[in-house]
Amino acid sequence: MKEYTDYLDELLDFLRIPSVSTLPEHGDDMIRAAGWVADAIRKAGIDFVETHVVDGGHPLVFAERIDDPANPTVLLYGHYDVQPVDPLDEWKSPPFSPEIRGGAIYARGSSDDKGQLCTHLFALRELSAKWGDKWPVNIKIIAEGEEEAGGASIEKWAAENHEKLAADFAVISDTAFLKRDTPSIDYGLRGIVYMEIEVTGPGRDLHSGVYGGGVMNPGSALARILDSLIDLETGRVLIPGFYDDVVAITETDRRLAAEVPFEESKFIEQAGAKTCWGESGYSTYERITSRPTLDINGITCGFQGEGAKTVLPRRASAKVSMRIVPNQNPDDIARKFCEHVNAIAPPQVSVAQVTGAPVTVECRKIHAASGVLLNPESPHISAARDVMEEVFGARPVLIRSGASIPIATIFNVELGMDVVFLGFGMPDDALHSPNEKFEIAQFYKGIEAVMKLLERVGKR
Amino acid sequence: MKEYTDYLDELLDFLRIPSVSTLPEHGDDMIRAAGWVADAIRKAGIDFVETHVVDGGHPLVFAERIDDPANPTVLLYGHYDVQPVDPLDEWKSPPFSPEIRGGAIYARGSSDDKGQLCTHLFALRELSAKWGDKWPVNIKIIAEGEEEAGGASIEKWAAENHEKLAADFAVISDTAFLKRDTPSIDYGLRGIVYMEIEVTGPGRDLHSGVYGGGVMNPGSALARILDSLIDLETGRVLIPGFYDDVVAITETDRRLAAEVPFEESKFIEQAGAKTCWGESGYSTYERITSRPTLDINGITCGFQGEGAKTVLPRRASAKVSMRIVPNQNPDDIARKFCEHVNAIAPPQVSVAQVTGAPVTVECRKIHAASGVLLNPESPHISAARDVMEEVFGARPVLIRSGASIPIATIFNVELGMDVVFLGFGMPDDALHSPNEKFEIAQFYKGIEAVMKLLERVGKR
Repeated sequence: MKEYTDYLDELLDFLRIPSVSTLPEHGDDMIRAAGWVADAIRKAGIDFVETHVVDGGHPLVFAERIDDPANPTVLLYGHYDVQPVDPLDEWKSPPFSPEIRGGAIYARGSSDDKGQLCTHLFALRELSAKWGDKWPVNIKIIAEGEEEAGGASIEKWAAENHEKLAADFAVISDTAFLKRDTPSIDYGLRGIVYMEIEVTGPGRDLHSGVYGGGVMNPGSALARILDSLIDLETGRVLIPGFYDDVVAITETDRRLAAEVPFEESKFIEQAGAKTCWGESGYSTYERITSRPTLDINGITCGFQGEGAKTVLPRRASAKVSMRIVPNQNPDDIARKFCEHVNAIAPPQVSVAQVTGAPVTVECRKIHAASGVLLNPESPHISAARDVMEEVFGARPVLIRSGASIPIATIFNVELGMDVVFLGFGMPDDALHSPNEKFEIAQFYKGIEAVMKLLERVGKR
Repeated sequence: MKEYTDYLDELLDFLRIPSVSTLPEHGDDMIRAAGWVADAIRKAGIDFVETHVVDGGHPLVFAERIDDPANPTVLLYGHYDVQPVDPLDEWKSPPFSPEIRGGAIYARGSSDDKGQLCTHLFALRELSAKWGDKWPVNIKIIAEGEEEAGGASIEKWAAENHEKLAADFAVISDTAFLKRDTPSIDYGLRGIVYMEIEVTGPGRDLHSGVYGGGVMNPGSALARILDSLIDLETGRVLIPGFYDDVVAITETDRRLAAEVPFEESKFIEQAGAKTCWGESGYSTYERITSRPTLDINGITCGFQGEGAKTVLPRRASAKVSMRIVPNQNPDDIARKFCEHVNAIAPPQVSVAQVTGAPVTVECRKIHAASGVLLNPESPHISAARDVMEEVFGARPVLIRSGASIPIATIFNVELGMDVVFLGFGMPDDALHSPNEKFEIAQFYKGIEAVMKLLERVGKR
């Protein structure tokens, strides 16, 4: 394995920028991270680099090098923003002070997605030296800073810049191997509909002794709503119409799934769970890849410190997201969700002696994206399979993933482009969790794989 | 009205000590606050002052002056600890930098209970000058630092020191007027049973795209439990056996309640609520004073920042407290609560393909105390009514309060002592909430009332 230690040092610098896109206090860090990406692109021999800010969002970095319009064109995508880091006290080393332990880089964003984005940027730098003045492939790059925050900027900008983004296919490196020795290429992704529910009661936190029993508790009202969303016995989402547009699992899905060495015991171990759980009538693999689901991502209400505080809280709120499958419409699902929440909300209930609404319930969409289903036998996916096999010594299995990459929807559904998911993460990289890591061997081999794929395209 | 401006300055100093008993980081502040109380007692001419620390808890301050054992003895009680201050950003002035606005002292603990405790200490200082070397009343004082944190120290110490605490009756100033122009004296208090529920799922916060649908969400399991505790339609607590030992509202209660100028519209306005709500078949006044109830005090789960984070949280927890009425046994209620929670908890449910418990549910008691019911026509309560009428110009109504003062249980039930609640707070003092206040006129008149009550006892 060729080692690219200089590139490793550069990646560590990139990881030191705390580019958390959902937290307003990191605005300047987002600009620094976008600047870092633009510089890295220029160092790869691409001079045309633009930065676009859409509606005050985080910068989009777009770049292109078209030496001959007759050559094939590849669009490379990555994101420079990262997830928040809490709970901070569970990190063994600080999330933005990358530390190398046991051959892996521990830092927020190492695997998702700065490390993987860098495989593209550094592969181009290597190829640039090789190719010289005349590149056999036209390259376009789009890097965004809102992948973890709904991606509003790229969604809007892409809708207005179809021409600029046009390419033969797109390469996205933001996924992981199925298992340590089994590379995998996604041909399907779930979409996401991320909602927030807020229940407001009294004008302030009240003394529960003085007011308890006389005023409705927003926490209880929220519990009622949250308890109405999913059936813990059957694992079914209870929102009326939720499953209306779900496409049944196909024969091709079943055939490809049979090749996937998914181990339920390994899955449970990786989750640190005691057992698996989910929708009746489906295997765990189907549940997490091809079936829609609903999860509470967070709940906030009243006193959260140590010990006891006797408040009747003035508000209670929850973040709830649904993973949707191809053909489910995100706007339709968001609407059905809010309709259901409003139907369950206590104001609709007739309570004795009540003259108005005891609490106010608000339901809003934070972001949403459709799922994606690609042709698993497309020529680009086949080429990627060959290249991955060559570099990693094992032929990738074709899988449907449960995660959501909204940009894939834009590339595939809106721009009609084929998409190749060339992912170098490991299943235990702890994405979105404390102690996220990216293995150095995956980083180096990832650079090789991107190089080989682009060289292969250049030879066509 | 006589003004005690020097005592006001001393009170402001006392309020600057952030003696939050439930937060471990305030340990030193608790010791400072206890020291402040001990000093103030000595300044009142009482030389016998002891400080007791029970099992590493916050100091108890005990003091006594017995000039003639044949004289009547009064036990004065107050607490120097205060509630936590969050949400901090809703305070107009910092909670521990007392500010005087519109004739009131704004600070955490101003009304609950430092300001009221000080009416005792400063009344004694005035009487000491008047009485000279021979006091006509024996005085005992017990001040604790755990009233807002379960009161474990005083509970244990009192159980072992019945003799030391013995008195003709106890005076507790930790309550409020029913209305601005209507002083009130409590003859009943609700008890409290404060519980914590913790649901643990996967070993860490998981990526909801990768694991969602395959692992049970602890937030959903918690929502199910919380939704099973109270019926929002009928306002009834759903824990089996919860109402078994509740004593029905009596004729005396009804007669005294009829004298109480309780205004529902005012109650709603003070709560900042849109409407009242509660148990069917009872008035709001009955619901908040004489009926047991249950409130969610806080919920914590997963991501609570701004925007979106797609985690499947590893844990979800809630603090739930029940206000119980006299004759309900706190230990029995805590046991029934846990039995119910465990019966509702998902592990008991048969889920298809589940081989173990998908989440772990723990239920524990944080603290508990019985309710209290006194004889509303006792001689001490009658004397207190006369004194309050003299000082405040209106005869106090006799009420049952919805709040809990566990020490009253100890004094009345354990030590068999009559108790007088001589409260000087106002109903809009915002106890346990941001912008807690204590009105200066109430402070000055409170000092007068305590003096008059003790003088009257001394003349017997």
